[in-house]
Amino acid sequence: MIVALAGGVGGARMAAGLAACLPGGDLTVVVNTGDDFEHLGLAISPDIDSVLYTLAGLNDTVRGWGQSGETWAFMEALGKLGGPDWFLLGDRDLATHVLRTERLRRQTLSEVTEGFARQLSIPHTVLPMSDDPVRTIVLTDEGELPFQEYFVSRQARPVYKGLRLEGVEAARAAPGVIEAIRKANAIVVCPSNPWLSIAPILRVPGIEAEVQAARERGCPVVAVSPFIGGQAVKGPAAKIMHELGLEPTPAALARLYDDFATALVIDNQDAQQALPAIPVHVTDTLMRDAAGQARLGRDVLVFVRALRP
Amino acid sequence: MIVALAGGVGGARMAAGLAACLPGGDLTVVVNTGDDFEHLGLAISPDIDSVLYTLAGLNDTVRGWGQSGETWAFMEALGKLGGPDWFLLGDRDLATHVLRTERLRRQTLSEVTEGFARQLSIPHTVLPMSDDPVRTIVLTDEGELPFQEYFVSRQARPVYKGLRLEGVEAARAAPGVIEAIRKANAIVVCPSNPWLSIAPILRVPGIEAEVQAARERGCPVVAVSPFIGGQAVKGPAAKIMHELGLEPTPAALARLYDDFATALVIDNQDAQQALPAIPVHVTDTLMRDAAGQARLGRDVLVFVRALRP
Repeated sequence: MIVALAGGVGGARMAAGLAACLPGGDLTVVVNTGDDFEHLGLAISPDIDSVLYTLAGLNDTVRGWGQSGETWAFMEALGKLGGPDWFLLGDRDLATHVLRTERLRRQTLSEVTEGFARQLSIPHTVLPMSDDPVRTIVLTDEGELPFQEYFVSRQARPVYKGLRLEGVEAARAAPGVIEAIRKANAIVVCPSNPWLSIAPILRVPGIEAEVQAARERGCPVVAVSPFIGGQAVKGPAAKIMHELGLEPTPAALARLYDDFATALVIDNQDAQQALPAIPVHVTDTLMRDAAGQARLGRDVLVFVRALRP
Repeated sequence: MIVALAGGVGGARMAAGLAACLPGGDLTVVVNTGDDFEHLGLAISPDIDSVLYTLAGLNDTVRGWGQSGETWAFMEALGKLGGPDWFLLGDRDLATHVLRTERLRRQTLSEVTEGFARQLSIPHTVLPMSDDPVRTIVLTDEGELPFQEYFVSRQARPVYKGLRLEGVEAARAAPGVIEAIRKANAIVVCPSNPWLSIAPILRVPGIEAEVQAARERGCPVVAVSPFIGGQAVKGPAAKIMHELGLEPTPAALARLYDDFATALVIDNQDAQQALPAIPVHVTDTLMRDAAGQARLGRDVLVFVRALRP
């Protein structure tokens, strides 16, 4: 049993890589929902959708988000009607948002997500970190910005100073999250943004403590670095490191994850960097396509097996 | 000042024909909202949309409803997710529904409609019959059916026995409807379904009385027949006539509209039928395209001018 903590595109690809190498039911992906927001009255869960689309093989590998073969007639018509155009909603993607919004009247986010996963023939478990609303507010040099305003409207240009997770104190881990971590043979922290994707998951009451308990009983907790040669593959992770006076290196990442990670997977390009004291596996961490995802997934699983007591 | 009572595709085309022949602001289209319903959490107003799309020249003239150049990626993706597929939502059409649903949280249906009309550069006034919910329930030989179930799911196959307009007693005419009828130099009853499109408008408290008051002060009330050679151009109007033991003829239509219509416009094909005692104008009533709409619009307006006291 493997638990992956995931958010964003890197998380979705890592999750899909692990999924490709594991028998159905052996993987539970716990997904960040701090990016969730309401737009045009629709309940949008960007990270859950990235994970679902990528696990189902529907993801667009060129654009890096959304579905492949996506079309934009809705956005064009919305523009004609004077609707907001800052957040792109593809015609296919809209089906997810509209159906989720409608089902959330009667179902929890977990239940809606499970229904989608089943319908898309995903043989693994995809869980939101919580069914309760948690909203990431980014603290920047320009003040507090709701996540999507920081990330999409402002394209992560304001200087990152920290984050506030609205609602996190009252949030409970979604059904199955704690149980999955408790039963896990290994926990994989995906190559997602450490602050914007991984931190919100760990801040849901009970989750980080359960990961630490897993480590204490000898369960490997392997973090896959989102950095390659001092850059993030996608998104503002490296920029944020610099803004916090840190370097986007394996050692800095290990310090960041010091409380729970027991091992690190880093890219070949970073093999010459100062390495942390924990076990490190060096490999090609770039996942260009489904084959690249599966290759890294296999690599991580082999490393994990070697770490087990 | 001309007021058109409209519902469905025939109503939308007639309204567009009149609009093409009148200076901006001289036409008020009062639209049936009995077909409105909620689907997938979206507020859908089929007749308002038909009128808006047709007045804006966005309507699909081949399919007969929705927008031209429509695409169906949303429906395909919705099917993959196990969503309902009985009601077709085009990718462009969805922009109208999503934006309307969102705006209805803060605005009335009139206000939303006015905003759309302005954005689509429609120089005339489009008013819902009411801002309050009125829902057409069709009484059939198979029991009561909500309008869209009768019309779309069952394709109007059950035998029509009558209708019930849920909420109509408490509904008020939308702002501007009564005033427009009061100021009208002529009222045009569009070639819409007399029961499913025109009756709901007239049943909103105050509207039929105001039309009768207009007739009493000498204002022509001209009904354009939806029948050509004993058939309806589109939809179940002729079928319903037969089910009620009536004939889809000019005379039967005149009897049906006896309470308020002062004149009739009928098709060349029906010129040999027994004609009612009120003034009748015989012309080509089939509107194939924008040119056909404008031709009939001009025809109706010339007839109307000749009727004025």
